[in-house]
Amino acid sequence: MNSNSNGQRNRQVRLAARPSGLPKRSDWSFTEEAVPQPADGELVVRVSHISLDPAMRGWMNEGKSYIRPVAIGEVMRAGGVGRVVASKHPGFREGDDVAGSFGVQQYAASDGKGVRKVDARAVPLPRYLGALGMPGLTAYFGLLDIGKPQPGETVVVSAAAGAVGSVVGQIAKIKGCRVVGIAGGADKCRYLVDELRLDAAIDYKSEDVKEALKRHCPDGIHVYFDNVGGEILEAALARLALRARIVICGAISQYNNTAPPKGPANYLSLLVNRASMTGMVVFDYAARYEEGVREMAQWIGDGRLRAREDIVEGGIDAFPETLLKLFKGENFGKLVLAL
Amino acid sequence: MNSNSNGQRNRQVRLAARPSGLPKRSDWSFTEEAVPQPADGELVVRVSHISLDPAMRGWMNEGKSYIRPVAIGEVMRAGGVGRVVASKHPGFREGDDVAGSFGVQQYAASDGKGVRKVDARAVPLPRYLGALGMPGLTAYFGLLDIGKPQPGETVVVSAAAGAVGSVVGQIAKIKGCRVVGIAGGADKCRYLVDELRLDAAIDYKSEDVKEALKRHCPDGIHVYFDNVGGEILEAALARLALRARIVICGAISQYNNTAPPKGPANYLSLLVNRASMTGMVVFDYAARYEEGVREMAQWIGDGRLRAREDIVEGGIDAFPETLLKLFKGENFGKLVLAL
Repeated sequence: MNSNSNGQRNRQVRLAARPSGLPKRSDWSFTEEAVPQPADGELVVRVSHISLDPAMRGWMNEGKSYIRPVAIGEVMRAGGVGRVVASKHPGFREGDDVAGSFGVQQYAASDGKGVRKVDARAVPLPRYLGALGMPGLTAYFGLLDIGKPQPGETVVVSAAAGAVGSVVGQIAKIKGCRVVGIAGGADKCRYLVDELRLDAAIDYKSEDVKEALKRHCPDGIHVYFDNVGGEILEAALARLALRARIVICGAISQYNNTAPPKGPANYLSLLVNRASMTGMVVFDYAARYEEGVREMAQWIGDGRLRAREDIVEGGIDAFPETLLKLFKGENFGKLVLAL
Repeated sequence: MNSNSNGQRNRQVRLAARPSGLPKRSDWSFTEEAVPQPADGELVVRVSHISLDPAMRGWMNEGKSYIRPVAIGEVMRAGGVGRVVASKHPGFREGDDVAGSFGVQQYAASDGKGVRKVDARAVPLPRYLGALGMPGLTAYFGLLDIGKPQPGETVVVSAAAGAVGSVVGQIAKIKGCRVVGIAGGADKCRYLVDELRLDAAIDYKSEDVKEALKRHCPDGIHVYFDNVGGEILEAALARLALRARIVICGAISQYNNTAPPKGPANYLSLLVNRASMTGMVVFDYAARYEEGVREMAQWIGDGRLRAREDIVEGGIDAFPETLLKLFKGENFGKLVLAL
């Protein structure tokens, strides 16, 4: 039954059931298949690192969203990086390092769509899942295109030590803003100020966020980049400056709710302050990914943009538990599973 | 004790207490003063019609908003129209018809700021409180500047038979949109379709708004102009088209809540649809009022924009009860109190 000369099999994690609340191990099934062989026009990738993203929780739900749900029985959707082990695709050859949406599995066949070659010598491979991947691009386009921060303005970002938030905060600093990060725990808050050089950090686990925003944002919030929703979104709404822009990137506090989600009760602050709240999905910027990666790679090279990955050396079977770290706020930087 | 040669006194309505829920008669006090005499640079207006606006409810609350609250003991803020009865202001003379923020009183002294001359022969005076006043300008700038409707797009407006909503719906038609109005009751819905020539009307009192929006907006909602908040805002959020724009103009369903207001639980529809929700306040467009009035006056002249006033002939003492008609949805067109 071996599928190739190395006797390798392809271990996979599939969605077994639509979770209610936090995904349980029984919401997943584990399967093993022959390692795929490339058809004409295809490449096969041995995945080395899988990206864990809050958005995955949404993909597990039924119903209309910005992308179709993962079907029951389907290999779970996931970004990943790895090396091409076989190719009948003109654009890729064996040995190329690549990033793409390869799923939670050890090997993936691909027609090359959305797969990009990456340079493992320039930066460590997992960084292409973080600062130089979807989270970094989400931060880049969400902040610059929707938030439009101006020098001297105050930018607040939630989940500020996370994969997206940490890039948002640093780009806002590069653009000359005063930046306040919100994160959970003293370690993360120290990291925001000491390592990422934000102007202030608020520990939502030990501080009254509303009060702290008042203290740290005397002129109000001009741009709020929201990754969390819930009470922190309300606290930010309560402190908006005139003509503030709220970027709605995610709402991790709400993704595992079993009760109906709470909307921001004080949304009329948008009216009072002539402010806007705008949703963004990074896929809309696909045509401009190059531009974002190029500029951020330069900032990383210059030492102006720091990146941190939280790499779990667990192998594919550790996927279910590793994913939960996101929702418990246990990761520190971009969460990645090493296979 | 007579204050002028006619023996006239100036009867006034003042805010006596900050209401909880619907304003009660005891939240007001009635006072009588001498009719003011103009100081140098002032004019005195005999007010003939007072504008009743949902926003008044917000002005009665304490706390930061887009305009300072009316103080306890102060004459209630209100727009009005009337005739200049005395003037020491170079820009106005006795007999001029004017519109401005004159307060709930029979006579007002003014330094002329925000007062504009109006032509009572062109249209009936109360229309300068409706389609050619703040509500019309709110509709004009909110829809065109924030909503940015494009020909062929679907525009939905709530409180569509009201002073703002009726103008929004008609301007959207003029701009080549498909327009769906939401209002309470069969009479208003008939008016929307038969008189204002909207494409469809939804009676929120007898229909499931969410279902009805699905039926009437097969391509989704491109622009939602919200005057009401609450469940109707949620229903609209559930039906957004990609890159939809929500204009937050008001939230009359929430103004008299004594419980904390409910935010839109499905605000993440903004993310899914890359949509925006933006607050607007008409005062920001003061420099462009002329432009709006000019264009709308032309549309009225052409018969493309119809206006309707609901004039209560109650005199100043009827102010408290007349205001409540707004919150009960009893008015039909722009609500005006004739003195």
